[in-house]
Amino acid sequence: MTSLYANAMGPSFIVPLAMNNRRQPEVFTLRRSLCDPTHVRRRSRSSLKTSGVTMAAATPTAQCEYTLHVDADSRKYPILFSEGVISKPDTFKPFITGDKVLIVTNSTIAPLYLNQVKSAIAATGVSVFDVVLPDGEEYKSLDYVSQIWDVCMEHRLDRKSVLIALGGGVIGDTTGFAASAFVRGVPFVQVPTTLLAIVDSSVGGKTGINHPMGKNMIGAFYQPHAVIVDSNVLKTLDDRQLAAGIAEVIKYGIICDWRFFEWCEQNVERLSSRDPDATQYAMIQSCKYKADIVSQDEKESGLRAILNLGHTFGHAIEASMGYGSWLHGEAVAAGMVMACEMSARLGWISSDVTRRVEAVLARASLPTRPPPSVTLERFMTYMSVDKKVEAGVLRLILLKEPGKAIVTSDFPESILFDTIMHYQQLYKESPGTYEHATLGLPK
Amino acid sequence: MTSLYANAMGPSFIVPLAMNNRRQPEVFTLRRSLCDPTHVRRRSRSSLKTSGVTMAAATPTAQCEYTLHVDADSRKYPILFSEGVISKPDTFKPFITGDKVLIVTNSTIAPLYLNQVKSAIAATGVSVFDVVLPDGEEYKSLDYVSQIWDVCMEHRLDRKSVLIALGGGVIGDTTGFAASAFVRGVPFVQVPTTLLAIVDSSVGGKTGINHPMGKNMIGAFYQPHAVIVDSNVLKTLDDRQLAAGIAEVIKYGIICDWRFFEWCEQNVERLSSRDPDATQYAMIQSCKYKADIVSQDEKESGLRAILNLGHTFGHAIEASMGYGSWLHGEAVAAGMVMACEMSARLGWISSDVTRRVEAVLARASLPTRPPPSVTLERFMTYMSVDKKVEAGVLRLILLKEPGKAIVTSDFPESILFDTIMHYQQLYKESPGTYEHATLGLPK
Repeated sequence: MTSLYANAMGPSFIVPLAMNNRRQPEVFTLRRSLCDPTHVRRRSRSSLKTSGVTMAAATPTAQCEYTLHVDADSRKYPILFSEGVISKPDTFKPFITGDKVLIVTNSTIAPLYLNQVKSAIAATGVSVFDVVLPDGEEYKSLDYVSQIWDVCMEHRLDRKSVLIALGGGVIGDTTGFAASAFVRGVPFVQVPTTLLAIVDSSVGGKTGINHPMGKNMIGAFYQPHAVIVDSNVLKTLDDRQLAAGIAEVIKYGIICDWRFFEWCEQNVERLSSRDPDATQYAMIQSCKYKADIVSQDEKESGLRAILNLGHTFGHAIEASMGYGSWLHGEAVAAGMVMACEMSARLGWISSDVTRRVEAVLARASLPTRPPPSVTLERFMTYMSVDKKVEAGVLRLILLKEPGKAIVTSDFPESILFDTIMHYQQLYKESPGTYEHATLGLPK
Repeated sequence: MTSLYANAMGPSFIVPLAMNNRRQPEVFTLRRSLCDPTHVRRRSRSSLKTSGVTMAAATPTAQCEYTLHVDADSRKYPILFSEGVISKPDTFKPFITGDKVLIVTNSTIAPLYLNQVKSAIAATGVSVFDVVLPDGEEYKSLDYVSQIWDVCMEHRLDRKSVLIALGGGVIGDTTGFAASAFVRGVPFVQVPTTLLAIVDSSVGGKTGINHPMGKNMIGAFYQPHAVIVDSNVLKTLDDRQLAAGIAEVIKYGIICDWRFFEWCEQNVERLSSRDPDATQYAMIQSCKYKADIVSQDEKESGLRAILNLGHTFGHAIEASMGYGSWLHGEAVAAGMVMACEMSARLGWISSDVTRRVEAVLARASLPTRPPPSVTLERFMTYMSVDKKVEAGVLRLILLKEPGKAIVTSDFPESILFDTIMHYQQLYKESPGTYEHATLGLPK
């Protein structure tokens, strides 16, 4: 077990996953307030031992399985980490109720993993059906949820049947919403196949689809019964999708743990080059942050909103460009830089922080500016339908200090305008610096 | 206060709403297990004073307002009963958050009540929008939920905006599902305008829409923030809709309180003729049964299913005939007779019970047989997609004894077939007895 994290080991205060050589399963806990921005700077190593998130190192070998437990108000469930786990019947068995399972996946993932997952589940003795949707954010729509429901009806699925989301964030969100509403709720299991889905969207129960006028506007808080993470799936992930996931990994450092951000600064090339140890470490650490925040605030009545750093800007970019043009993680990367820039303009952080955030994202081949076609007017149009608008007031996630994000509407609108205009101006001054040729992005 | 129930007073063990002349608001409680079929025969008058459902007679005059409190796991909320309440701003004020309200209603109700509700809400100082859907069960579909979401987006509703369902069960179910999923959940208030919606569908948080292959297959458990019952609205209800509501009132007697059934036998013509006292008594009593059951089992893991007596047969009739051909309450009436017939064939109740159920429903101008076109094959097709099917096993609500319903799959399939065939046979023997000319039903 030590070897697994020998190289990837973060700063000493980060929960030491591999601190001992005992061969027994080990359960240790994180403090519930680990990521609470009001406490994040006061934690000590010893205080990491009291918490709502538990983690078990089940088999302390290089092939070990890790299990994190999410303790949301509406449901407790495990996140299982293990190589090759999606082709083993035993993986799925504990989560199968009833006698029918429907796997929802997309046309990219189906040729790679559908058969092995299907065989593994069929070996548990149930009937397994599948539905293969087209791949892309533009298909995260009511039409495709409706297709899933049609298939559920066609195969006479019932309240005990299980839906499996095999894919990235789009598949997870769409399937989760379909599961939440079919016969008013059936169990579902997340099998994320992208880094972004593993570290972010598959955990925490936010499900939903896009409305033509706004991202994720229709959906439900509906927790999965399990999240099954097979790091093998990352081997087939394309570079652009990988980078989009790295954006969300880096996000956790920015919002609640600056020393994890510094670890990212030191290791971002290892993540881009798919170093298994660094990737595993980043995945587990990210899921711990996510699980801990969700355990404290499942329905985003407060704290949870900090997970949306860069997302209000990012959603406006995605909607304005047309879903599927920019990947979610790419839009979030540019949005996080904008949020940092705005925080610096408010005098809350130094502009050096913004530069560091920009630099590490750029090293991960992520965009660090909004596209020039998303004008101030378009930003304001799309941001006005963001879910964080309440009674007409826009709230944003901004940085109070490095590693400490807050949700706030306490800013002059002029600073928001100036921030957006800053990027428009930058593009006018140096259009050549806006290059995403490597990502195949529209200019 | 005494006068209100002087004539409508039920048998003595029913909670005496009007037992004293005190002028102070009175709060008294029902036993949580009031309708638990395992306890229903053992209750005593004194035990009615301990419970999860509370009821306050706020102003003990002939114009008094009553408030029942529903204590579901996910939310506590009031059911307000009062004449003229929907045109008063104070009615809505406590339930309005944010600065925007969307009223969802239908083309029958809009000319009657939309303006007064709109004015009352606007007087609280918020922006009020409306969407008017066509009237009928056939519009309880994804298309119309999607229309509601479009209007929400168009008017930039946000998480604090409130949806108001002004209409019968179709509007309530559709609006509730729309509210559950818009930005993952906004508050909604039920303003039921049919007897059926008042006594059944507006209370308890079952929301949803029909799938072409099955009724209420897509939806959410999502409790309203309030139910506002204005008995004035019943004055404009047509006779057929009124009768459909009476079917659900009678249901409560059959499933959990045989003495309330006997009250219905004694008073059914008073309900049909819209006697205000009898109607008010039946409404409040029905809501108490419903609220008590929902308080015990919000998500239908057990007990709550008994509320679906006759519904599995009824849903098959509705789906087979095409939604909107038979009213829900009409299909439930025929379905309840079928459930009694089947229970009698199982030897659980005497056939005299079935005849009494049939007789009281017929006196309310309700159908007491399935239409001949719904053959055994069609029943089995539609019943196989019922939400109460689990792992391929059909469960039905049947009567163990008068006033005591159970959920069970413990019956020989042959008895189910025999029951359905019995009605096919009856029709062959005496087609003339199947007459619904007064309801305008297809023969």
